[in-house]
Amino acid sequence: MDLTYREATEADLPFLDALIATDEVAAARDPVLPDNAAQQLEAMRAIAADPNHELWIVEAGGEPVASFHLSYLPGVSRKGAWRGQVESVRVSPHLRGQGVGEAMMRWAIARCEERGCGVVQLTSDNTRLAAHRFYERLGFANSHAGFKLRL
Amino acid sequence: MDLTYREATEADLPFLDALIATDEVAAARDPVLPDNAAQQLEAMRAIAADPNHELWIVEAGGEPVASFHLSYLPGVSRKGAWRGQVESVRVSPHLRGQGVGEAMMRWAIARCEERGCGVVQLTSDNTRLAAHRFYERLGFANSHAGFKLRL
Repeated sequence: MDLTYREATEADLPFLDALIATDEVAAARDPVLPDNAAQQLEAMRAIAADPNHELWIVEAGGEPVASFHLSYLPGVSRKGAWRGQVESVRVSPHLRGQGVGEAMMRWAIARCEERGCGVVQLTSDNTRLAAHRFYERLGFANSHAGFKLRL
Repeated sequence: MDLTYREATEADLPFLDALIATDEVAAARDPVLPDNAAQQLEAMRAIAADPNHELWIVEAGGEPVASFHLSYLPGVSRKGAWRGQVESVRVSPHLRGQGVGEAMMRWAIARCEERGCGVVQLTSDNTRLAAHRFYERLGFANSHAGFKLRL
């Protein structure tokens, strides 16, 4: 499948929302969050304004089919190496199992290399066991526990 | 113990390096990383230049005793809520077990609230079981697996 990559614009918000809505883990996590379109638009503007954030839309045949968010984070640990962080990795359900996720994650890793990162990191909900095997196949080590605290 | 908080300057790099050197997990992870003072200085400058990164130095009696890095990350998931991310959490060995870590993490959580974050997140190496219990006592859920890929 030929995939192309472009950064998201505000016009992609309906696609992104629909993609999030197909995600059972996110849906189970956020049952009571009110719609907050203004806050989402602000987030998209903050991402667009910051060269260290990139919200990618993956297209196949001219249609958006997947998305992920890359952040490049400076830090003093690891001898000052930049970290590439991947968040909000999602593929449209009708295209799952066809290699889209693998192709886009390999692309994301290459993009982090291009940006000079020394490590790529992400967290995955404990219940997403298939995703865990997927990341390990890509060479990631499941070396950390991921803690979250809602405010 | 009375703790005070200030953002790091380049003059804190020797303290930060010494703190990292006391960290067995980081030492085991990075046995072959060359010294890279220039890259660390660049990282400190990138942090200082970006209002969404704060590298905190915790002092007791006018002496630095601990440090942590807070990042404020925009995102489209979680209805566009900002994430507070904590990295490089370290306390000087001679002050461990005296409540410094708990006080500073509560301060960090309050700081993320002040910055409008909807969630605070961090990862902790799988071998740091005492740290995991510590974060759970603070209210964090150990809900995710943390994946890292060295480049």
